[in-house]
Amino acid sequence: MTTPRMLKPGDTIGILGGGQLARMIALAAAPLGLKAHIYAPEDGSPAFDVASAHTRAAYDDLAALERFAGAVDVVTYEFENVPVYTADFLARHVPVHPGPHALGITQDRLEEKEFVSGLNIKTAPFAAVHDEAELEAALNRIGRPAVLKTRRFGYDGKGQAIIREGDDAAAKFAHIGRHPSILEGFVPFEREVSIVAARTEDGRFEAYEVTQNEHRHHILHRSTVPADVSPAVAAVSREIARRIGEALGYVGVFAVEMFLVVVDGAQGVIVNEIAPRVHNSGHWTLDGAVTSQFEQHVRAIAGWPLGAVERYGRVEMTNLIGDEADDWLAVLEEPGAHLHLYGKEEARPGRKMGHVTRIFDED
Amino acid sequence: MTTPRMLKPGDTIGILGGGQLARMIALAAAPLGLKAHIYAPEDGSPAFDVASAHTRAAYDDLAALERFAGAVDVVTYEFENVPVYTADFLARHVPVHPGPHALGITQDRLEEKEFVSGLNIKTAPFAAVHDEAELEAALNRIGRPAVLKTRRFGYDGKGQAIIREGDDAAAKFAHIGRHPSILEGFVPFEREVSIVAARTEDGRFEAYEVTQNEHRHHILHRSTVPADVSPAVAAVSREIARRIGEALGYVGVFAVEMFLVVVDGAQGVIVNEIAPRVHNSGHWTLDGAVTSQFEQHVRAIAGWPLGAVERYGRVEMTNLIGDEADDWLAVLEEPGAHLHLYGKEEARPGRKMGHVTRIFDED
Repeated sequence: MTTPRMLKPGDTIGILGGGQLARMIALAAAPLGLKAHIYAPEDGSPAFDVASAHTRAAYDDLAALERFAGAVDVVTYEFENVPVYTADFLARHVPVHPGPHALGITQDRLEEKEFVSGLNIKTAPFAAVHDEAELEAALNRIGRPAVLKTRRFGYDGKGQAIIREGDDAAAKFAHIGRHPSILEGFVPFEREVSIVAARTEDGRFEAYEVTQNEHRHHILHRSTVPADVSPAVAAVSREIARRIGEALGYVGVFAVEMFLVVVDGAQGVIVNEIAPRVHNSGHWTLDGAVTSQFEQHVRAIAGWPLGAVERYGRVEMTNLIGDEADDWLAVLEEPGAHLHLYGKEEARPGRKMGHVTRIFDED
Repeated sequence: MTTPRMLKPGDTIGILGGGQLARMIALAAAPLGLKAHIYAPEDGSPAFDVASAHTRAAYDDLAALERFAGAVDVVTYEFENVPVYTADFLARHVPVHPGPHALGITQDRLEEKEFVSGLNIKTAPFAAVHDEAELEAALNRIGRPAVLKTRRFGYDGKGQAIIREGDDAAAKFAHIGRHPSILEGFVPFEREVSIVAARTEDGRFEAYEVTQNEHRHHILHRSTVPADVSPAVAAVSREIARRIGEALGYVGVFAVEMFLVVVDGAQGVIVNEIAPRVHNSGHWTLDGAVTSQFEQHVRAIAGWPLGAVERYGRVEMTNLIGDEADDWLAVLEEPGAHLHLYGKEEARPGRKMGHVTRIFDED
């Protein structure tokens, strides 16, 4: 581990990925006096519009990566599917936060589950699936219903299939492409919650309050805070995030998605997934907390003090998916609603086009 | 007057000037789904770093202006010294907000004073000064001390001289360059206050609360809100702003700087200056109000609904002038302080490098 290095105003943050998360990181970096350089393969990436520089190149273009590394003072990313060898290559030239190690673990659902349960933190029961025989054995052990997921590259419900009583398991495996997979026991949860936290290289840690999340068609629809969880669950969630961050040697903002379960009348949480990046369920912090998750991420990767995480009231964040973003004028007309559009040109179904935050006085 | 035209997400705002005000307008435009194109003569202008496009060209480069007009959907500016012929030229191609008329009046201290007093709104006594004879006559009428100011291009105390008892008036006139000037009576004010307001093309109007301003060496040092003014003065100030906006046919955010005077124990205000743009004394709205002045300006020039102007508490905005910006780390360490750096490379004395906002619970 290298000595923590502190950025100074005028320095440049390199961001891999050019979508809305990169865009909001860049927007948060500017008031702190930092420049953003976006690296993304797609033309017209939304983050290009708010950055001082951008490189349009593939993640395996070593010449472009080397030039990028030379032009920035730290590298971060907006999504967990950046190839680990890309992060490794960059890390030889410039600090990369979070590091390739955290990236490698969190981009493989099986490794991630093994890592979490290795910390004695509860997850759903799970088993590796490479072929039909392993799938059958896993189903016998875990039972049905169960969720079959590709180990890599799944998000927003993609690369997943539920196997219920009577389903043809092999057909479901074929449906998700027969990729190396993980079978997970179905968790009868009360609700979905998450915790967004930040850690610095020298171990400082801050977590926002637990957020309650409502999905529609496997895509986050709404996050609300405070979540309807017991003080014990709030404390446990924070401790889970702290231990995960510590064990990963994590630098930056990350999210832990959890299922809230009730056993014998007592609330408990089961970790579903770690996102090694700023997270949709933390978007409420943009208007609802003293420091947004985007500023917090910038502070953490810059080696700076973390900001205060207090919230301004009861906060509600609603995603604008696909043509829901056509309602932008109604949002502008609503007193106190904060519109956040991502600058995407085409509103495809299921595509996250923006979000709205609303802040209410506490009851 | 043309029918108000409404921008839509994906459209581009053109901004003349590339300093911190343009930068903060561009940062506010992005979450609303709008792009920013900065037009400025200076290399490395701070606003370039957060805009989707920039043109580095002079304000009299008609070919560059025409290309700029063709690339944007509305034009605005961050400072009042844009030549009126530049605004006029652009207005033949694209909507310019605020319009050349408001620009012309507010960039000439004499025209501005005549305009304000023509609305029966109180100003300091004033007189035009073109030569030493006029200066002498003006001093005889207005008395000493008085303030001699160039009619154009003054800001932050530049182009001003106080003429006191015994001073050589002609020498003072020579000192400010013998430019066409205005002599203003010295106002024995209690404090300096301002009101930042927004108006749309179809006459909607919103004003933030009156702000109290403290200057050091003629440069704004600190703004606090609420100001220590009576409810009557608050109402009068709002009405002054409304009438000025109305009479100018103003579109966008503007500020009215005023002197608070006390006559026979009763507070009153005297208008000092109109700024046809977002204003330093409105920076507190960035973290301290539901809608920042920058978002409000974007909404107004886009033809969109104005946002809510309520504040979140008692707010204090402190400028970071020159090497005061070296204290950035101490600001980051202070819980709840919001750092805003402008991305300027060189911290010259007297140069505005950034600001800090602090929000406190109301007493």
